[in-house]
Amino acid sequence: EETHPVIIAGFGHFGNTVGRFLRANGVNATYLDIDSDRVALLRRMGFKVYYGDASRHDLLRAAGAAHAKLLVIAIDNVEKRLEMIETAKKHFPNLHLYVRSRNRFDAYELLNAGMLHVYRESLDTSLRMGVDVLKMLGHDAYHATRMSKMFLKYDEKNLKKLAAIEDREAYILEARTRMEELERILQEDTNNRLMLQVDAAWDDASLIKEATQQATAQTE
Amino acid sequence: EETHPVIIAGFGHFGNTVGRFLRANGVNATYLDIDSDRVALLRRMGFKVYYGDASRHDLLRAAGAAHAKLLVIAIDNVEKRLEMIETAKKHFPNLHLYVRSRNRFDAYELLNAGMLHVYRESLDTSLRMGVDVLKMLGHDAYHATRMSKMFLKYDEKNLKKLAAIEDREAYILEARTRMEELERILQEDTNNRLMLQVDAAWDDASLIKEATQQATAQTE
Repeated sequence: EETHPVIIAGFGHFGNTVGRFLRANGVNATYLDIDSDRVALLRRMGFKVYYGDASRHDLLRAAGAAHAKLLVIAIDNVEKRLEMIETAKKHFPNLHLYVRSRNRFDAYELLNAGMLHVYRESLDTSLRMGVDVLKMLGHDAYHATRMSKMFLKYDEKNLKKLAAIEDREAYILEARTRMEELERILQEDTNNRLMLQVDAAWDDASLIKEATQQATAQTE
Repeated sequence: EETHPVIIAGFGHFGNTVGRFLRANGVNATYLDIDSDRVALLRRMGFKVYYGDASRHDLLRAAGAAHAKLLVIAIDNVEKRLEMIETAKKHFPNLHLYVRSRNRFDAYELLNAGMLHVYRESLDTSLRMGVDVLKMLGHDAYHATRMSKMFLKYDEKNLKKLAAIEDREAYILEARTRMEELERILQEDTNNRLMLQVDAAWDDASLIKEATQQATAQTE
């Protein structure tokens, strides 16, 4: 039995994209999925997909979990996902776990379960849409992209801090403060950029003035 | 009544992220959501959110649709989303529509309904996870990121071609061909990069050899 470095559990749009991207980079993965129709379709598309419940340790073992390096948990079912994490932690502590999460609150739960690699499924795409909206409104494309990277970075940092707060009222207050802080950081970066443009324009103006004065002085 | 350039319908994780990102870039939006609990919570977080069914043209009009530039359709409900698109096309042809889609097949439907800006919600995040997996396996971070950008670009191009195919068997064949082509393009880019490294190493070796020969000649 051939062992791949990566096992991907859940082969919907998320897991499928990870798998195709890895394969395009020369990395083979073993796939697990519980939807028999999808398994049949994907096999016809040329994927090696195993059918079964990925939270069962015997299935994970058969898929090579004892020798793989990474387990991508891309399944949709939140309870199954937590079961799978428990199984993996107990039976295959060698595996690095990369986990898809649905949203912010789902991500808190995963972080509190000790997960290090948590990916909110729609975060990056919503930011790409945000960049495109800014571009449509006439904003600078390079700057908008830079802003989206800063946003992602700070939002991920805040996520880890907010995950630790259990009290709902304290959470709302802290979430709002963090959100406003993030917006302020991005606005400051934009202001700095505008200041640099003003400075550059000022410098250009002084240089033009200086050059004109020199030219005038020479012709006088 | 103040009119914002952007209206965002659906204020879950997707719409919320777009809205926060726009606000951090100085762009105000009007928000619509049908979940009264969420509206209450988000108002407490400092957002101006209107409660109601965003597929109704009177609500869209009240939200400023006649004078806005863009409508972000980030709602989860697939049927409501199509209704909303029809309403917007009929009553507010001035609006550019930016639409969230769940997956590939959902995106086909939106493209076939004439939508120009369609965003598969988990596409970008699954690619970011793919990049991180490659990095964990020891791949070069810069190259992995470059690959993810190429993947996104070609996959989006293929999406538009595949959306036009109605026959299921023809679709499977074409999808598989396109998928293999995409993987080949990325692999070729990787091979070219490796060739360049070999060339560079070869050049370095020749330069070192040449320099050594010159140095030896001088001391002889």
